[in-house]
Amino acid sequence: MYSGSMSTSDRLIESTRELLWERGYVGTSPKAILEHAGAGQGSMYHHFRGKPDLALAAIRRTAEEMRAAAEGVLGSPGSPYERIEAYLRRERDVLRGCPVGRLTMDPDVIASDELRAPVDETLAWLRGRLAALVEEGKEQGQFAPALDSGEIASAILATVQGGYVLARASGSPAAFDTAVRGLLALLAPLG
Amino acid sequence: MYSGSMSTSDRLIESTRELLWERGYVGTSPKAILEHAGAGQGSMYHHFRGKPDLALAAIRRTAEEMRAAAEGVLGSPGSPYERIEAYLRRERDVLRGCPVGRLTMDPDVIASDELRAPVDETLAWLRGRLAALVEEGKEQGQFAPALDSGEIASAILATVQGGYVLARASGSPAAFDTAVRGLLALLAPLG
Repeated sequence: MYSGSMSTSDRLIESTRELLWERGYVGTSPKAILEHAGAGQGSMYHHFRGKPDLALAAIRRTAEEMRAAAEGVLGSPGSPYERIEAYLRRERDVLRGCPVGRLTMDPDVIASDELRAPVDETLAWLRGRLAALVEEGKEQGQFAPALDSGEIASAILATVQGGYVLARASGSPAAFDTAVRGLLALLAPLG
Repeated sequence: MYSGSMSTSDRLIESTRELLWERGYVGTSPKAILEHAGAGQGSMYHHFRGKPDLALAAIRRTAEEMRAAAEGVLGSPGSPYERIEAYLRRERDVLRGCPVGRLTMDPDVIASDELRAPVDETLAWLRGRLAALVEEGKEQGQFAPALDSGEIASAILATVQGGYVLARASGSPAAFDTAVRGLLALLAPLG
């Protein structure tokens, strides 16, 4: 499944990322990870202290990738509204859900401060990035001055995370797009 | 845990509802359900064909309750905006997540048309109910006529579902409230 040049440690991390996205933390057994990675039991304990340690490495890598992908559109040229729109409309594997956000529904992730931290940090970073853009849009007269940038940023982020829920419930990515269009209509620049 | 007057079948359903909300479908074993219900293994197979059958009964009951609770605020007196606001601000066990929406992150629920159906139907019903209110608000001049009622309803529903994600990530219900305030500011009546 992975190229021969990938280290065992990397194969274990990549396998864990895939399985966490697909099955969640509770649904991912060490046995399934080893099988997916084509690795022996000893190799997991040679590189990691156990499932939580390996999951932490996997979640951190997924969080970094998500941040880079978001920054790719949020930091692109264009007006604040256009950059928020590009973020909302960027290509996503909608029916798979958000690889970071879906972890919040995992009781064992939420029960562990260590595993929850990268999830919380990633969403907080995104929220801060969006709030700065809304603030910029307010200064440029694109958004109403009375709006609270942090609140609007939270609503944007929540629409994305909830869009995944609606898409998975209906079995169609269209439900995500519909929610995004609704939010964009409400956010549309003044005048 | 349950009153002595509750039938074994009801105890099994109530236990399954609790565990699905807490641990998800993948994380809920038949053994855990039986322990929680204080029931013997035979009783589960006497009343239900197995875990999927019992889960379906549990999900249906949870969905019915959620619908009744939502209708309680959406059907209350007040302007369309006030009723949408009441729905968004209604008391919720935010940190536990939505007992219906969280099931969409459960791979075994999504893989089963039968288990996914009550989840999809409940969210579709809510969306329709909200869309009718937005339409009413447009007719009364509360919302801009150019808004698409279905899209706005989806954005409202997504904000709620995503609000749970943000709250669980941060470990605080405040994150849910912030997203709701942002959406309400964007929805605020004209004039």
